[in-house]
Amino acid sequence: MQHSESQPSHCIFCDIMKGAAEVSVCYEDSSAVAFMDIQPVNQGHTLVVPREHFESFQDLPAELAKHLFEVAMRLGPVIRRVGGAEAMNLIVSSGEAAGQDVYHFHIHLIPRRAGDGFDVPLPFAGSTMPERTVLDAQAAQILASLRDPMRPTPRATSVVGKK
Amino acid sequence: MQHSESQPSHCIFCDIMKGAAEVSVCYEDSSAVAFMDIQPVNQGHTLVVPREHFESFQDLPAELAKHLFEVAMRLGPVIRRVGGAEAMNLIVSSGEAAGQDVYHFHIHLIPRRAGDGFDVPLPFAGSTMPERTVLDAQAAQILASLRDPMRPTPRATSVVGKK
Repeated sequence: MQHSESQPSHCIFCDIMKGAAEVSVCYEDSSAVAFMDIQPVNQGHTLVVPREHFESFQDLPAELAKHLFEVAMRLGPVIRRVGGAEAMNLIVSSGEAAGQDVYHFHIHLIPRRAGDGFDVPLPFAGSTMPERTVLDAQAAQILASLRDPMRPTPRATSVVGKK
Repeated sequence: MQHSESQPSHCIFCDIMKGAAEVSVCYEDSSAVAFMDIQPVNQGHTLVVPREHFESFQDLPAELAKHLFEVAMRLGPVIRRVGGAEAMNLIVSSGEAAGQDVYHFHIHLIPRRAGDGFDVPLPFAGSTMPERTVLDAQAAQILASLRDPMRPTPRATSVVGKK
């Protein structure tokens, strides 16, 4: 599913970047902004967002992705402190089937406390628990794909395969 | 909660790094290894793991964290293809209250398909939906903490602003 082409012209995160929507910014630089989630799991729940509109992992240039994760890592300890929490989830949902809600790439930084009611169900209880030979075959397929000089570059430009 | 001091001497991921446990490796370099999750949400579900034992975000050196996310970003498109999925979750659970299961830092890359039974419950239905003034105060606290030269440095090298 390619939302980039069908995405609604209205993006709430782009509104925020333009100063056209309420926001509580806790970090900003020339390419990244971080602000408080309006529906936080716990206080300190923050979103790290590129200024420019990129919908998902598929669309995000590699350098920008790298920078956003660096910002997230820098914010992490501060956010845990503000959230009064030792634990934290970092979550990206990319694409509709992954539960992406706003189609402007964002990284969730979620301070976690025991009993806060949020749950990431891993390890996955519904897993089919494949045989080792199946896992080996998948790993081999990934290794081969990474080594293939003909594979199109995995980011920024031309995303391959299933699109 | 600081598990680094109380962690069990036995770490299954360290066993894997030493070649003492079964594993299906799909990427490796001098500091990072990626392998197939044995309880995958969908085929292609991969873990990106540092060779060296670091328990969680708190313990992970900044440069290594950066590298692990770079590896994850590089693997992403390939894993989506192997998983036959457009969507993907990237998830880190750091600390017991965040649902960390193996206390050796790892990044989940999870290809996602509609109806696969996995769910990251965001936006969080149980949220208290704080007033804007409360969010503003939290953001101000984070901003101040980031600017405070006396704050403990959150990472090894201190990355500033935009790189």
